[in-house]
Amino acid sequence: MLLRLQRNVPQSALDSIFLLCKELGYRARHPGGRADLLELFGPGSPGDRSRFEDLSGVAQVLDPGEARELHELAARGAPSQVRVGDAAFGAGAVSLVAGPCAIEDEERLVEIARGVRAAGATLLRGGAFKPRTSPYSFRGSGQRGLESLARVKAETGLAVVTEVLDPRDVEAVGAVADMFQIGARSMSNFALLSEVGRTRTPVLLKRGFGARVRELLLAAEYVLAEGNDALVLCERGVRGFDSVTRNLLDVGAVAYLKRVSHLPVIVDPSHAAGRADLVRPLARAGIAAGADGLMIEVHPAPAEVHSDGQQAVSLEAFAEIARDVRRLVEIDGRRLVQPELQPDVSA
Amino acid sequence: MLLRLQRNVPQSALDSIFLLCKELGYRARHPGGRADLLELFGPGSPGDRSRFEDLSGVAQVLDPGEARELHELAARGAPSQVRVGDAAFGAGAVSLVAGPCAIEDEERLVEIARGVRAAGATLLRGGAFKPRTSPYSFRGSGQRGLESLARVKAETGLAVVTEVLDPRDVEAVGAVADMFQIGARSMSNFALLSEVGRTRTPVLLKRGFGARVRELLLAAEYVLAEGNDALVLCERGVRGFDSVTRNLLDVGAVAYLKRVSHLPVIVDPSHAAGRADLVRPLARAGIAAGADGLMIEVHPAPAEVHSDGQQAVSLEAFAEIARDVRRLVEIDGRRLVQPELQPDVSA
Amino acid sequence: MLLRLQRNVPQSALDSIFLLCKELGYRARHPGGRADLLELFGPGSPGDRSRFEDLSGVAQVLDPGEARELHELAARGAPSQVRVGDAAFGAGAVSLVAGPCAIEDEERLVEIARGVRAAGATLLRGGAFKPRTSPYSFRGSGQRGLESLARVKAETGLAVVTEVLDPRDVEAVGAVADMFQIGARSMSNFALLSEVGRTRTPVLLKRGFGARVRELLLAAEYVLAEGNDALVLCERGVRGFDSVTRNLLDVGAVAYLKRVSHLPVIVDPSHAAGRADLVRPLARAGIAAGADGLMIEVHPAPAEVHSDGQQAVSLEAFAEIARDVRRLVEIDGRRLVQPELQPDVSA
Amino acid sequence: MLLRLQRNVPQSALDSIFLLCKELGYRARHPGGRADLLELFGPGSPGDRSRFEDLSGVAQVLDPGEARELHELAARGAPSQVRVGDAAFGAGAVSLVAGPCAIEDEERLVEIARGVRAAGATLLRGGAFKPRTSPYSFRGSGQRGLESLARVKAETGLAVVTEVLDPRDVEAVGAVADMFQIGARSMSNFALLSEVGRTRTPVLLKRGFGARVRELLLAAEYVLAEGNDALVLCERGVRGFDSVTRNLLDVGAVAYLKRVSHLPVIVDPSHAAGRADLVRPLARAGIAAGADGLMIEVHPAPAEVHSDGQQAVSLEAFAEIARDVRRLVEIDGRRLVQPELQPDVSA
Repeated sequence: MLLRLQRNVPQSALDSIFLLCKELGYRARHPGGRADLLELFGPGSPGDRSRFEDLSGVAQVLDPGEARELHELAARGAPSQVRVGDAAFGAGAVSLVAGPCAIEDEERLVEIARGVRAAGATLLRGGAFKPRTSPYSFRGSGQRGLESLARVKAETGLAVVTEVLDPRDVEAVGAVADMFQIGARSMSNFALLSEVGRTRTPVLLKRGFGARVRELLLAAEYVLAEGNDALVLCERGVRGFDSVTRNLLDVGAVAYLKRVSHLPVIVDPSHAAGRADLVRPLARAGIAAGADGLMIEVHPAPAEVHSDGQQAVSLEAFAEIARDVRRLVEIDGRRLVQPELQPDVSA
Repeated sequence: MLLRLQRNVPQSALDSIFLLCKELGYRARHPGGRADLLELFGPGSPGDRSRFEDLSGVAQVLDPGEARELHELAARGAPSQVRVGDAAFGAGAVSLVAGPCAIEDEERLVEIARGVRAAGATLLRGGAFKPRTSPYSFRGSGQRGLESLARVKAETGLAVVTEVLDPRDVEAVGAVADMFQIGARSMSNFALLSEVGRTRTPVLLKRGFGARVRELLLAAEYVLAEGNDALVLCERGVRGFDSVTRNLLDVGAVAYLKRVSHLPVIVDPSHAAGRADLVRPLARAGIAAGADGLMIEVHPAPAEVHSDGQQAVSLEAFAEIARDVRRLVEIDGRRLVQPELQPDVSA
Repeated sequence: MLLRLQRNVPQSALDSIFLLCKELGYRARHPGGRADLLELFGPGSPGDRSRFEDLSGVAQVLDPGEARELHELAARGAPSQVRVGDAAFGAGAVSLVAGPCAIEDEERLVEIARGVRAAGATLLRGGAFKPRTSPYSFRGSGQRGLESLARVKAETGLAVVTEVLDPRDVEAVGAVADMFQIGARSMSNFALLSEVGRTRTPVLLKRGFGARVRELLLAAEYVLAEGNDALVLCERGVRGFDSVTRNLLDVGAVAYLKRVSHLPVIVDPSHAAGRADLVRPLARAGIAAGADGLMIEVHPAPAEVHSDGQQAVSLEAFAEIARDVRRLVEIDGRRLVQPELQPDVSA
Repeated sequence: MLLRLQRNVPQSALDSIFLLCKELGYRARHPGGRADLLELFGPGSPGDRSRFEDLSGVAQVLDPGEARELHELAARGAPSQVRVGDAAFGAGAVSLVAGPCAIEDEERLVEIARGVRAAGATLLRGGAFKPRTSPYSFRGSGQRGLESLARVKAETGLAVVTEVLDPRDVEAVGAVADMFQIGARSMSNFALLSEVGRTRTPVLLKRGFGARVRELLLAAEYVLAEGNDALVLCERGVRGFDSVTRNLLDVGAVAYLKRVSHLPVIVDPSHAAGRADLVRPLARAGIAAGADGLMIEVHPAPAEVHSDGQQAVSLEAFAEIARDVRRLVEIDGRRLVQPELQPDVSA
């Protein structure tokens, strides 16, 4: 017998559970070091189950082997779909996220937003808060960037995904963002994961460049365990020993994740490639491996950008990628979600 | 001015070259440590060029910057195509290589050969000599395996690619093989590379699991430098820090190789995945990234195999992959080469 | 000419700087994307320097090439030494940090603290807040753990280093900790780095298991840039492709860091090895490579521990390591700092 | 019951073994795919053992669990020691191998040999055949280099270790070499391993830069299985994702190998560091981790060298390293083997 405990069970409730174990002749242990589960070994008479179910602190009584982690495909039975504005990820729906790496000026952002929307993007990316390896690098425009994003949303009707770096910023960023991005460097920032898990805003969780797939899934579990299941994973390349690409896009991880988890998975070919001329083949590879979407860095004048400029593709290149995706997803009966044909607010 | 020297120039010829340099006022050095090139610095009067061209030991007089390595796309101007039996790789042609990992019994091999041919393979793989990490593992059937391969070729009309491990076996293996395979563990076996380079049999060169792309290209250069340009590269995954797949399929390397080299590149999703259920998505990803073919381990009864059994796919699964490839290559105007509809010899 | 700007210069001050540039005929740019520096190109008449020095927002006027990052050895001229309680790291001083991974019960902690102190440790490690990959694992005892640490400090006279995970906990943890630990998973948590940088409590910064050395140095720079220079780096192994040890202890990084930076560097052989029987040789290797100390997981009954039990060494094994270190540091004229012989408060 | 079979057992002998199995009621299988072992399951009556021992093709009848690989410490009970000229590796003996990367001119080589001998080296390294990643790089001086080595040996009394790359060169190289070096790129060249295994000349086997420790041990097994047990392993760094050192010296692998195998292990800090200024700390770390020796690239004028010049240390730096090693090995009761004080032949 396996008890799933409620979160933050008080000691008194645990004591009652152990008392009942003793009384009925069970030994108890936390399986695999999991504090949320209690496995019972003992005589197993039929009426015992309901006696444990009645106890305070016990969420559910399971059969052994039934205790699944929340990200597992088997825990849900079918792939989940996450919707953000016009975009939808998973369960047959494929969407494109596009935009600049950092927000520079608002006019430019509106231009990019309209451009990528026309080409097929349904979600705009734009970093107001940027994690920078050096404290001396350009670190994004913060609050001012958020305000720009808000106006660009209003003007273009595109939903936006933007990064949050500090648990103390979750509220402010959440006031504008349609989707939180947890960047690769923050994948193991458990305080931040729990904080976005407590909101009901969709979350895009990027794999750390040194993280195992299992660690990504457990980071996901931090968000899911708080009750937020609008979660999309993102593979963006891991650190390898070669430098022809900046990172090694792990298409095997994408394929594996689609086998074991119900969560949608997208691919970021821009950060994986680190060079504009390889973004398109990596984008195609990601979709062909089963990804539910792409996140692509686009800039109308790639050479001008403050950060990560070499990997940004032009609007024309983005449109070609969108065409590729449209044809690729047809092969296995999926569809690329199109931007709604709503009249442009500013038109 | 840049002199490309002939191979194995005798010291007396070198002495004459240096003498002429001195006479005409040039300093000479091997650029980038390349013994095949001699860069000359000096006055550069117009008639000098032809004086060097006349010297014994000088293959060609180039302008600086003209000295390209043989694998470079720019050295040839267009992608090359390598033909082996019915198969063709590169320059728009995509082919499927399939077969068992090791040759067990001949009857079984004929069955697999017919099966993969019917599903779309144009080249049969079959290891007579197998590199094994442990001296105590099953090491392939050697000469007996070669004889089996020869009979299977005769019976099915399929060309075969098979591994050669030892420079002393090149002749014996070459008597049967339509294409030599240089395995990942042999990628830096320069004696072996030179030996197959001296034949005119096509070569399939697999990337070592710890090798940089530049090292793969230089290994290729060993074959090309001996005059054998029927060379196909193969990406089969590199060593990573995760274990959800056995190796990390480096689709970025595939995309990069197609940008810089004229050589055809194929992908081996079987060894990359290390598990049958991920072979299909990795196969698709490889083709979508630009690969000119696939090499897939197929076994009619995957569970029975002596080595690498977990990654072998069934004939049915292989047929599905072939269907995927047919549709994927259409997207960018390439074609999957079909087995000739010649009457089966044994029919 | 190179201007080092003050932090958070208002736009109006920047405008004045640019105005003066224009007036005197200089062009200005941020070198290497560094927002804290402004490089000026132009006529360079002698009086200009003082005119810029007088401007609000300009911290310092430097000659080009003078702008060093704060971690650089050349920026300081000599190795720095960081003192925490009896412990001292760097500039010839070597210290041992020891203790359990997580705090279980207070009595046990006092026992360990006395044991490691007797064997030569001058700093006690003990995790009140533990980062755990899974949300369901035992996550440390939080506030209760901090209180235990405080009592153990009082009772044993040992200073303590303990991890802080969330910028919002810096104040509470700082009330007890003599040194903050920033764990490997938090190395790129820039909000947290800045927060501990604003305190004057010493900081132990562990290298992320997927982080380059340059990234570790830039993470250090986040702390230093806030004015806290009591900073010690810690190498604890990086992710490799083998599993005979949990991580690959990068002794080359230790040697390199000692060449380029003035910051003290210690080694954590326990997390690198991941198994108790290899802790001693890795501890020796770290010291021999130049490390200024060790951080070792010790437990009087290693088999009982909640987390990371397999790598904890016994008190006896720790005492052997301390003996090794004492002899190793003599070879190059360094010294192992001994715990003060002060009367034990509780005696 | 477990049968260890002789090598290359003919089919007829195998048939007799299987017949006896059938007669006595045993089922047989190759455990873990090992063709050299046959595990028998069945009734197990006491007299059966001798009946199998009498069969042709059976080398030994073991109890299950007794079948050890030849490299295992448990297979031999104590560390082995390998002697080459004055040098001895293992079982408390530590020796230094030193010399240039490639042989340039003989006079220079004599100078280096005398210098390193005076400083404490007992074995001279010198590559006559050099593996080069590019076919166009300087590839060593081949036969001429071997002749130089022979004369330098005669003149200085130092034994030499030199690389062999091609199984067809084993005889020629063995005529001069006191020890064969199998380079990192050849670690999985099984034909070459078997060939040197068939000689009785000591072998130095370097770990491939992408090879797991288990793979190194199995490569060792190829040599041992042919009957040559004068085998020394060499850790020279593995490929990592950082570039502050050329490779990542895996001191954990050294410590692990000393725990599980009786084979001596040395460290090559020169190839690991890839830069002269880090050779000394890496040399110290290797010895402190338990290595039985070092292999160091030394050149009297490091800047002049044809290949790998940046990592060669001067004679003075080598002498400092030798002094460090002498003191380090004292700590655990080992000794640095000194060159014999024999009168120099040429004196």
